[in-house]
Amino acid sequence: MSSKNVFYGINAFTNEKLEGEFINASEEEINKVVEEATKAFDIYRKKDKSSIANFLDQIGEEILNLGDALLERCHLETALPFGRLQGERGRTVNQLKLFAAVVREGSWVDARIDTAIPDRTPVPKPDIRHMLLPLGPVAVFGASNFPLAFSVAGGDTASALAAGCPVVFKGHPAHPGTSEMVFKAIKEAAIKSGMPKGVFSLIHSNSNKQGELLVKHPQIKAVGFTGSFRGGKALFDYANSRLEPIPVFAEMGSTNPVFILPQVLKEKGEQIAVGLAGSITLGVGQFCTNPGLSFVENSEATNVFYKKLGESIAEVSSGNMLTSGISKAYNEGLNRISSLKDVVELAKGKENEIANRATPKVFKTTISGLIENESLAEENFGPSSVLVEASSKNEIIKAAKDLEGHLTATIFGTDEDFKNYQELFDILEKKVGRIIINGYPTGVEVCHSMVHGGPYPATTAPQSTSVGTNAIKRFVRPVCFQDYPDGLLPDALKAKNKLNIWRLVNGNLEK
Amino acid sequence: MSSKNVFYGINAFTNEKLEGEFINASEEEINKVVEEATKAFDIYRKKDKSSIANFLDQIGEEILNLGDALLERCHLETALPFGRLQGERGRTVNQLKLFAAVVREGSWVDARIDTAIPDRTPVPKPDIRHMLLPLGPVAVFGASNFPLAFSVAGGDTASALAAGCPVVFKGHPAHPGTSEMVFKAIKEAAIKSGMPKGVFSLIHSNSNKQGELLVKHPQIKAVGFTGSFRGGKALFDYANSRLEPIPVFAEMGSTNPVFILPQVLKEKGEQIAVGLAGSITLGVGQFCTNPGLSFVENSEATNVFYKKLGESIAEVSSGNMLTSGISKAYNEGLNRISSLKDVVELAKGKENEIANRATPKVFKTTISGLIENESLAEENFGPSSVLVEASSKNEIIKAAKDLEGHLTATIFGTDEDFKNYQELFDILEKKVGRIIINGYPTGVEVCHSMVHGGPYPATTAPQSTSVGTNAIKRFVRPVCFQDYPDGLLPDALKAKNKLNIWRLVNGNLEK
Repeated sequence: MSSKNVFYGINAFTNEKLEGEFINASEEEINKVVEEATKAFDIYRKKDKSSIANFLDQIGEEILNLGDALLERCHLETALPFGRLQGERGRTVNQLKLFAAVVREGSWVDARIDTAIPDRTPVPKPDIRHMLLPLGPVAVFGASNFPLAFSVAGGDTASALAAGCPVVFKGHPAHPGTSEMVFKAIKEAAIKSGMPKGVFSLIHSNSNKQGELLVKHPQIKAVGFTGSFRGGKALFDYANSRLEPIPVFAEMGSTNPVFILPQVLKEKGEQIAVGLAGSITLGVGQFCTNPGLSFVENSEATNVFYKKLGESIAEVSSGNMLTSGISKAYNEGLNRISSLKDVVELAKGKENEIANRATPKVFKTTISGLIENESLAEENFGPSSVLVEASSKNEIIKAAKDLEGHLTATIFGTDEDFKNYQELFDILEKKVGRIIINGYPTGVEVCHSMVHGGPYPATTAPQSTSVGTNAIKRFVRPVCFQDYPDGLLPDALKAKNKLNIWRLVNGNLEK
Repeated sequence: MSSKNVFYGINAFTNEKLEGEFINASEEEINKVVEEATKAFDIYRKKDKSSIANFLDQIGEEILNLGDALLERCHLETALPFGRLQGERGRTVNQLKLFAAVVREGSWVDARIDTAIPDRTPVPKPDIRHMLLPLGPVAVFGASNFPLAFSVAGGDTASALAAGCPVVFKGHPAHPGTSEMVFKAIKEAAIKSGMPKGVFSLIHSNSNKQGELLVKHPQIKAVGFTGSFRGGKALFDYANSRLEPIPVFAEMGSTNPVFILPQVLKEKGEQIAVGLAGSITLGVGQFCTNPGLSFVENSEATNVFYKKLGESIAEVSSGNMLTSGISKAYNEGLNRISSLKDVVELAKGKENEIANRATPKVFKTTISGLIENESLAEENFGPSSVLVEASSKNEIIKAAKDLEGHLTATIFGTDEDFKNYQELFDILEKKVGRIIINGYPTGVEVCHSMVHGGPYPATTAPQSTSVGTNAIKRFVRPVCFQDYPDGLLPDALKAKNKLNIWRLVNGNLEK
């Protein structure tokens, strides 16, 4: 084994190697795990719903059974605080439980029954029944910024397994030790739940090659990804260049524009400034939904808002980022933004001498500054944000219309603001997956209604969400059964509704 | 205007020009109609559900108001018999009515409400509400083989308009007069229903250039297509090469494999032979779901089946195809298949001296013949079909496993056959969008449960259907609204369920 195929977990506080060697998966290994996933698919997709639900619950149990050792390793690999990781573990386990509940309830399969009319003229009406079936083995790519909730046993894994698809997981090289521990928990759960070998595999890699091989493997039928635009777009292009193109659900982040309307700025400018500073710097700004671009209209209230925002940012110390590479990219991004014409620094956090430093920074520009400097609309991953000052409502509306696709948009306003800016709601509905009123975009609730997605370039798949129960729909396709004898039908479609699920029978929803 | 930009409707029986000139749309014209569609979108998407439903119903009325003149022109342009066109008109109008009913009922928007828990610890739970919203202007391409039901006012148009998306329609050059008449009916309906200019436009074209310009226009947000693999794949590639890639719902046909199992072959071989001959030759074989490949296991019963199939085919006369180009391609296809090693002609219909002739033909080969000649698995659009004789169950199973994606698969069998071939069901579930038992694939019921789609290369979008009420889901994306004041929410999500639709409230489906 050549040394270049070996890599290590890195202490994010010191950039020193941690214990344990990890080996870049070879092409043979990738073929082997995909073949195993393909074989597992034929068994796994026929498992009854309670077996799959129990498996998901068991994964949660096994993760909890890892105890503090998991959080300790993860803390070293990511520099994320212990408390945050405890919360993230809770979210990961709850997410598995939520998908288990969805599978157990069972109505997500969209069962539809249109019964026959044999004596219809001119042609008899056949009996047709419809449900969603799993696509096949899914490749999932872990994200660096959520080493538990968007990684090995994260949302993509939970929703793919819930749908009945085996998962081949490409671990993120920024937390290989964490990945390996969670992988062992899933393996343990699979054994205890009687799931087939190959239902879940982990491959390690610190280069792009393994991901490319995985996405191009003919037996892989869909891809889940959370990360950079460059990474997601590369996978999307690989997938479309295949002999059989496959869907890629890549969530590629965004700048999450915030609009603070005039009346509320006047009434609550200082309060919003404090909250916004918190949202910008939360978790060292390492969230997909970090507010990177805020619009305000020039007025007397604007300066009060700037002052308070500046003071709030100045109180926040540098944070330690996930990796040295991410910290380097962040600081290069700051230098790039600082050098732009018509962009000034409004505020800066307290500099600390730590390894992978990110010091919060807020810049200020005008609408024409934003138009001149297109790169301002791109995400600079970390605790930096740009305030854009407009001289009129028209400038605000125009800027909203010029936005690309984002995950979220936020509007702060009073009732009067909302009346005056009604147009803004209509525009943003076409630009994002989630609109927040008088709140902050960070914090993505895992529930039935969540949409974590949005038009390109926020994602490669605007018709889907990667968080919330609807995420399961990414990994299925509809199949219909015509004139089947009852005994051959899947349980969800048999005459007797023994699964007790909601079904659309001749157009009427019933149980 | 250069003469090369002008083209004509062609009499499909004589290949002579019909009355009326049609002009290839210029780039300026395409930009103009897309701009109009973009403007119309902002008005159309805010129309209440009954206005949109009434508009769809009105389109149906206006089509009926065209009376026999529509069928007469269509008959000349396509050579399709009057009776068939009457039926197709009925289907087209019923399809519009069905989508009107879906819109009027309203639950298709997948309304989801998760209410707030302000005192949840450690963080409050926000109020989040979810629904499906239209994507924007959609480009739809008409198919030659259904000049009404898959053309100007066909299924793609009906489902896109129902979803709230304006449509820019590229008419098929094989029936421009029909297209123009239906277009006028839609325009009339739009005026009577108070719909904005630009809600529906038709462009003419007899080259590929206009389609490329349309799909690459930045304001087009999705594409619907029914036609050849080459055509659909080209649009898919254009769409993915855009700065903002967009979804392409291309239904590209297939060979729709049929499996006739041993016991039923013995018991009902002759009856199935008669039915299969009918399905192969129905409408001169010009259906996406035409059975192009049938598998039988060698036995004493096989020869009886062959004989009856041969006799049935021999009774069918040549038919007049839709265009001279389609007839030429069909006859070239026959020559290609005839020249293949290990492929013999089993039966042939009666030759008639008609213009765009297609004479039914059935070929016979073995499993090894099929493996050696990969092109046999490709569609030869028209009334030709290939019988594949297997020497064992294993050969049948292997052949099923080797299938690519198709729209449909059909299994003929007795209860005993089904027991012996249980594996076959599991294999075909992974290969197609619809499985038919003891029936024929031609005839696609427009209902809630229909899936007209399937894995690539049958379609570019295996997660969707182009026929049936679920087709509406192709043209929407989910959006969620966080902490909205009730007054700002769309009606579907307001506290009071005044639309009386099914909603998932905190995980419970209720009205």
